[in-house]
Amino acid sequence: MTRTLIRGGLVVTATDEIAADVLIDGEQVVALATPGSGLAEAFASDGTATVLDATGRYVIPGGVDAHTHMEMPFGGTVAADTFETGTRAAAWGGTTTIVDFAIQPAGGSLREGLDTWHAKAESRCAIDYAFHMIMSDVTEASLKEMETLVGAGVTSFKLFMAYPGVLYSDDGKVLRALQRGADTGGLIMMHAENGIAIDVLVEQALARGNTDPRYHGEVRHALLEAEATNRAIQLARVAGAPIYIVHLSATEALAEVTQARDAGVNAFAETCPQYLFLSVDDLARPDFEGAKYVCSTPLRPAEHQAALWRGLRTDDLSVVSTDHCPFCFTGQKDLGVGDFSKIPNGVPGVETRMDLLHQAVLDGRIGRRRWIEIACATPARMFGLYPRKGTIAPGSDADVVIYDPAAVHVLSARTHHMAVDYSCYEGRPVTGRAETVLSRGRVIVDGGQYLGSAGDGCFLRRDTCQALR
Amino acid sequence: MTRTLIRGGLVVTATDEIAADVLIDGEQVVALATPGSGLAEAFASDGTATVLDATGRYVIPGGVDAHTHMEMPFGGTVAADTFETGTRAAAWGGTTTIVDFAIQPAGGSLREGLDTWHAKAESRCAIDYAFHMIMSDVTEASLKEMETLVGAGVTSFKLFMAYPGVLYSDDGKVLRALQRGADTGGLIMMHAENGIAIDVLVEQALARGNTDPRYHGEVRHALLEAEATNRAIQLARVAGAPIYIVHLSATEALAEVTQARDAGVNAFAETCPQYLFLSVDDLARPDFEGAKYVCSTPLRPAEHQAALWRGLRTDDLSVVSTDHCPFCFTGQKDLGVGDFSKIPNGVPGVETRMDLLHQAVLDGRIGRRRWIEIACATPARMFGLYPRKGTIAPGSDADVVIYDPAAVHVLSARTHHMAVDYSCYEGRPVTGRAETVLSRGRVIVDGGQYLGSAGDGCFLRRDTCQALR
Amino acid sequence: MTRTLIRGGLVVTATDEIAADVLIDGEQVVALATPGSGLAEAFASDGTATVLDATGRYVIPGGVDAHTHMEMPFGGTVAADTFETGTRAAAWGGTTTIVDFAIQPAGGSLREGLDTWHAKAESRCAIDYAFHMIMSDVTEASLKEMETLVGAGVTSFKLFMAYPGVLYSDDGKVLRALQRGADTGGLIMMHAENGIAIDVLVEQALARGNTDPRYHGEVRHALLEAEATNRAIQLARVAGAPIYIVHLSATEALAEVTQARDAGVNAFAETCPQYLFLSVDDLARPDFEGAKYVCSTPLRPAEHQAALWRGLRTDDLSVVSTDHCPFCFTGQKDLGVGDFSKIPNGVPGVETRMDLLHQAVLDGRIGRRRWIEIACATPARMFGLYPRKGTIAPGSDADVVIYDPAAVHVLSARTHHMAVDYSCYEGRPVTGRAETVLSRGRVIVDGGQYLGSAGDGCFLRRDTCQALR
Amino acid sequence: MTRTLIRGGLVVTATDEIAADVLIDGEQVVALATPGSGLAEAFASDGTATVLDATGRYVIPGGVDAHTHMEMPFGGTVAADTFETGTRAAAWGGTTTIVDFAIQPAGGSLREGLDTWHAKAESRCAIDYAFHMIMSDVTEASLKEMETLVGAGVTSFKLFMAYPGVLYSDDGKVLRALQRGADTGGLIMMHAENGIAIDVLVEQALARGNTDPRYHGEVRHALLEAEATNRAIQLARVAGAPIYIVHLSATEALAEVTQARDAGVNAFAETCPQYLFLSVDDLARPDFEGAKYVCSTPLRPAEHQAALWRGLRTDDLSVVSTDHCPFCFTGQKDLGVGDFSKIPNGVPGVETRMDLLHQAVLDGRIGRRRWIEIACATPARMFGLYPRKGTIAPGSDADVVIYDPAAVHVLSARTHHMAVDYSCYEGRPVTGRAETVLSRGRVIVDGGQYLGSAGDGCFLRRDTCQALR
Repeated sequence: MTRTLIRGGLVVTATDEIAADVLIDGEQVVALATPGSGLAEAFASDGTATVLDATGRYVIPGGVDAHTHMEMPFGGTVAADTFETGTRAAAWGGTTTIVDFAIQPAGGSLREGLDTWHAKAESRCAIDYAFHMIMSDVTEASLKEMETLVGAGVTSFKLFMAYPGVLYSDDGKVLRALQRGADTGGLIMMHAENGIAIDVLVEQALARGNTDPRYHGEVRHALLEAEATNRAIQLARVAGAPIYIVHLSATEALAEVTQARDAGVNAFAETCPQYLFLSVDDLARPDFEGAKYVCSTPLRPAEHQAALWRGLRTDDLSVVSTDHCPFCFTGQKDLGVGDFSKIPNGVPGVETRMDLLHQAVLDGRIGRRRWIEIACATPARMFGLYPRKGTIAPGSDADVVIYDPAAVHVLSARTHHMAVDYSCYEGRPVTGRAETVLSRGRVIVDGGQYLGSAGDGCFLRRDTCQALR
Repeated sequence: MTRTLIRGGLVVTATDEIAADVLIDGEQVVALATPGSGLAEAFASDGTATVLDATGRYVIPGGVDAHTHMEMPFGGTVAADTFETGTRAAAWGGTTTIVDFAIQPAGGSLREGLDTWHAKAESRCAIDYAFHMIMSDVTEASLKEMETLVGAGVTSFKLFMAYPGVLYSDDGKVLRALQRGADTGGLIMMHAENGIAIDVLVEQALARGNTDPRYHGEVRHALLEAEATNRAIQLARVAGAPIYIVHLSATEALAEVTQARDAGVNAFAETCPQYLFLSVDDLARPDFEGAKYVCSTPLRPAEHQAALWRGLRTDDLSVVSTDHCPFCFTGQKDLGVGDFSKIPNGVPGVETRMDLLHQAVLDGRIGRRRWIEIACATPARMFGLYPRKGTIAPGSDADVVIYDPAAVHVLSARTHHMAVDYSCYEGRPVTGRAETVLSRGRVIVDGGQYLGSAGDGCFLRRDTCQALR
Repeated sequence: MTRTLIRGGLVVTATDEIAADVLIDGEQVVALATPGSGLAEAFASDGTATVLDATGRYVIPGGVDAHTHMEMPFGGTVAADTFETGTRAAAWGGTTTIVDFAIQPAGGSLREGLDTWHAKAESRCAIDYAFHMIMSDVTEASLKEMETLVGAGVTSFKLFMAYPGVLYSDDGKVLRALQRGADTGGLIMMHAENGIAIDVLVEQALARGNTDPRYHGEVRHALLEAEATNRAIQLARVAGAPIYIVHLSATEALAEVTQARDAGVNAFAETCPQYLFLSVDDLARPDFEGAKYVCSTPLRPAEHQAALWRGLRTDDLSVVSTDHCPFCFTGQKDLGVGDFSKIPNGVPGVETRMDLLHQAVLDGRIGRRRWIEIACATPARMFGLYPRKGTIAPGSDADVVIYDPAAVHVLSARTHHMAVDYSCYEGRPVTGRAETVLSRGRVIVDGGQYLGSAGDGCFLRRDTCQALR
Repeated sequence: MTRTLIRGGLVVTATDEIAADVLIDGEQVVALATPGSGLAEAFASDGTATVLDATGRYVIPGGVDAHTHMEMPFGGTVAADTFETGTRAAAWGGTTTIVDFAIQPAGGSLREGLDTWHAKAESRCAIDYAFHMIMSDVTEASLKEMETLVGAGVTSFKLFMAYPGVLYSDDGKVLRALQRGADTGGLIMMHAENGIAIDVLVEQALARGNTDPRYHGEVRHALLEAEATNRAIQLARVAGAPIYIVHLSATEALAEVTQARDAGVNAFAETCPQYLFLSVDDLARPDFEGAKYVCSTPLRPAEHQAALWRGLRTDDLSVVSTDHCPFCFTGQKDLGVGDFSKIPNGVPGVETRMDLLHQAVLDGRIGRRRWIEIACATPARMFGLYPRKGTIAPGSDADVVIYDPAAVHVLSARTHHMAVDYSCYEGRPVTGRAETVLSRGRVIVDGGQYLGSAGDGCFLRRDTCQALR
């Protein structure tokens, strides 16, 4: 087996910042050792070990992005990144695990959906991947299947309170799924927006001739996110189940999560970089440029950002995922010219998450360990991948990033690796960059080169949620 | 015109407790006058005036019960009190106005429903009456009709988040109705329980063989009342409309109302005597006796009572109505033997409300003026009847009760005047009783005699809500 | 006895807005009567009655200003309005009752303080007046005296958590006074600012050379008002006593009151027009002009105003008083040139309160009845003067204002009647003005003339608080 | 240097539970290594290494007890445990670090107090120790000294809002100390009870003849703890400083901490085992036995326990310390016979903390990692000792406990090692026990033997607080 030694860096995990050598044997970390203890030298003494110098660098766990949608069909088109392009972009950005969403087909079984997504991903991925399951049809049969999927390592199930007629589940279905989640250990993830009410507002806005992208933000009212968030939590309490709110964007929704968590409820929430760094001002950009920023939940007025950052500090927001779901401006987003409701929902982001959050460290928004916690450790715990993923410890997969905290670069569609024709952060300079990326012990990015190949990444069978209090 | 003079009593309204003579000319109060000022004497000097001596008594506005269901069809049977028997019982209990619920028929118009209820009530009522409208089918047509009804004095519209397939409206319909309420001045009243989720729990309970009445309380979880209450409030905020929550029974639901009111939202709630004086212990009575206490929202564990009394003191609960909807134990409640979900929902109460609340005054739960406020003045204001009803002031209808605060009597089906074969409060002694009851200047109850006749009561065209902050 | 009849107006009280004639016999209202009922005509038929035409006008209770400091010694000077000038100005502004603060002298008894203030006020006042007692020295003796004062109609006692070494009481003294208040029915009023902490900040500010008036606002931190407010409330809860917070100005302090009231605690608070209409922007006016706006609690940033208005709507703020305590800019305020801590604390306002609040009605901030409630009825109830003062009802003192809701005038020191050389609202136009003012049946202001004389006003023995829930 | 290898155990830290060998070189951990990786074998290959078999055991960081009072003078007597007996007892219980409180003498400097405590502790301690500084006299001089002490590794300063005339600081002193804390990095710790008010209640209780120990609990009202907690937090916010509340015991106080933390304030709190496992029922034990349970803050009614456990789960309570301050029942506690206020305040507990908390793990109150977090990692972080103490990682001090999670034993004064004649938990069986205890690489407890000696423990210079968000 190949040995790798990473020396001289500052190992930063969710809880520790220590000068330590990282000893990797094959695909796994086998030890962290004090520099000068002689252990690293002994380990590398056979001469075959690869030695990576991390002097002046951070040595961090590879990022875990728990919310991506590669090749996802939506509104008559398909998200622009394939598992191949998307996971390669993730690797470039220092992310070494994604959890993507398989979708139960209308009228079909969970298994069929999972098989379809396995087929899409297999032999394509640059990094390890796992699946959540979107339950678009909660029936006796699909509820029964949940147990099988948990056994197969698909231990989380997403439901939608939005998108009536497409992915929507009513409250009875939500309750049944939560009950079943409590029984099987499957964690219910919730898109918490009152889609039934929103559809009324969409119809009314269009009828008034309000067709521009910015109306997407107006009709998806913050109170309708808060309402659905509260509803999801209360249904979870009735079911005795934990709940995970995806892509939380509104202050009012955060308040619901905070209140529940104060009461000791196992309610969790993620937010996404777009809600932390962008706002309705972007949605209102002229010449249909706002369409680049259409996603659901929508971007909010800029004052919500401070609340979200505070929530990340107080742990009322536990995870930052990307909800990466890119659609090209030309040929995809423009399906919604003249009708904002036809704009495919989603923004690219899998590549830029780690750097944007590191920028937040430099800006004093969050601490350095908290950066790793929300981007690596907690998503891994939440979705049953810890400590295999999300940390650097003996026995962990050697998904390790040598991160240069001083590297300045500019985010741009011209240089990014995502298969989409725009960047939400075009021209924004950030400080910090993944320099060398290891996936299960193999160097896949280094020196500005991609050294891996499609199919390096394996499917990960996940345990059940490890974040319960 | 006939003059009536009420002398020597303590006039108690929502805001005042003053020794004053009440001068009534025909159907209206024309003055309150200081005893000894000579005004009463002058008023009565022609010798034709009826003089009622209220020495040692309270002189209070007749009660306004804003939530009754006379002759209401429910679950294959019909509420036992007709407009004739029910309003007569109300009069006996010191209530001189009811607001009953007309029901839009399935597939029909609001107007049809209203006409049906007008036909039921006309020439039958002992006291004045008005109608709310239950919207069981929110459509473009019925939304349009709301304006007409407001013009016809039916200025409040009840929706149900419970009873899917029967009276249920989904959140889109609720939102549209609230928007239309904001436009027309129509006040939306909400039965706030998550009926979709409850129906799942009902089905599961029955499948487990849990068929007794007490399971009615268990499946209608307090959190599902709180959830729906929050949802109704948030939808109202999105619509820019006020909202009135009917028959609130759970601490957790009250907390939602309190939070909204603290924020200045025009959210209002009523509770009912059954939630203040009864509990799940009653629902759990053996030999199917629990069925007598089946209503929705359900009775709660006794510890909720303290929260409701506190809510009445803090004005987070603004009104006490009865939700009077009586079904006989024999022949009606017993439809649900072996299946609690088939027990007709409802309890009798129109006759006992004023006395139970006066008992609460004596028990130190609420003050004397607050008694009148929650039972007379605020319901009148809430539903556009003030100051015609709900107070004693120049220009008010002379709906006046001479109330003996020291009379002790025992509540019982043997002595009550409601057309139902049981009392929820059988054997309970209370202190305080309506001695003389005037409806628009006519004495209809006095000296233990009913002196009125069917058809004394008139339909009241109501103004829009007068309680907005 | 002299009869007066006010005809044709809209009688507006805290609860009613009715077209009614007001019948006054001597000093008291004897009846409200329906126009056209013949009662007014009969009442005035002897030809001696004065008939006032209020057509197109409001007929409102005279204002009750529960917080004034006439001739108050402070920081080596004395508030500029005497009882004569101050009460006359009050009358001009439609206020017919003040409750002023007698002060226990250092080392002396409550009685001595009260006697001193009686001597100042007697035969001077244009309107009726009552006293609160400032306890500047809580001792066994002064605690014992509380009962005597309650018996003498001085039923409220103010303590200071601010002004160490002068008026300050420590928490032990506060607790003892609250306990004694619970025993005697005396209501404790609290100046809630953490004066001990503030004095540290004052010293530090001056040491840094921050001597301008605006630093008065900075050192009296909103959190230090909130802290003291919470402390006062908790001490009251321990003592089982109600508590009344004076001149609340900060959002954070209001939140403490709201939280307590939600829990059913008998905590009350007043705010003042200066906090509703002025802000730190005024404190920061150049050329020492800011000194005109120095009062404690201090003016806050303008965003606090919305919270205060909301608190008035939700009844978390129950009263608007003036804290009238005027010091001339020249010769008094200028004692603090070069040291903001030497600026006498206080602003004039007894004359402008009713009009500013009526303006708020026109601006949609509060309703018309709420205007009367916060300015007349609730202060009367809070301090044991209801229904003698604060309303128009049979048996009430005939303190009545005929108010022209359409009169436009401009607030200015050139035209006001307070004995102070500036107006906080100089140049501000307002709509609404007291046209005719009656005090116990006598017209004292009419047609732009002051018709009363010093000594018209009587001392009022007050009952204990009538606002407890 | 001596090598030690701990093999076969489950290493449990605040964040990880991994099967790993722990490699210790001299006093420090040099590596954690995957079993079977050959690293342990290589490390131990020279034959001199001590190998400890931890199969079936947990390998945990030694406990960090951040709140002890060895040999503390109080009320005319001295806490019964010396640094020698107390730290030895700590070692027996699996605690390898204490942070004790040096006390500034009345009229003296911080330095003098620190020197006194250094003299008490030096060459006596079984385990490493550090000091907080009790500021009993906040003056310009002592505020200035804070910086020196921070430089000397004494980075936290305790103030008392209780005990007027003894240790009490008024709010001005508290504010100044907090400001100085913000400047120097010194963390202010607060005994948050309103001692001024409590002293009034004490005096009143004694005057009523209420002298038994249980009145100690009644006079120290939960609301007076909540009040002081809020006050401390608000003063900290004004100062821009973090705050740490010691020995929080009341639900209402916890609510204040929760609210502050929700708002992102750096407010922290500890509770103690006595508040989690004991109650006022113990204080009320007959025959003066209640005196054994007299400590301040006092024990609370049992229903507070659930709130404290929830606070530990939600991280609103961050630390469990002991407040170990033992006084013998005979000869010390009995000073207060006939006057509860003379009972020395304090209970023993340094030896039993780790086991009681492990019992809570078994009882499902907290998770296994959370056990280590609240008892080891967070106290170390809070007080600047991390990662030297509180975890097991390369570079950490080898303070390691081999813990048998299945060992059942019974808590009793007959078997404990604390120098006090009673146990608060007499007769209570617990499961879990420290089997082998290493302090900086040396085995000091093993096989039921104490193998260390007085003076093994070193003074720890601490960094400033590492827990800020």
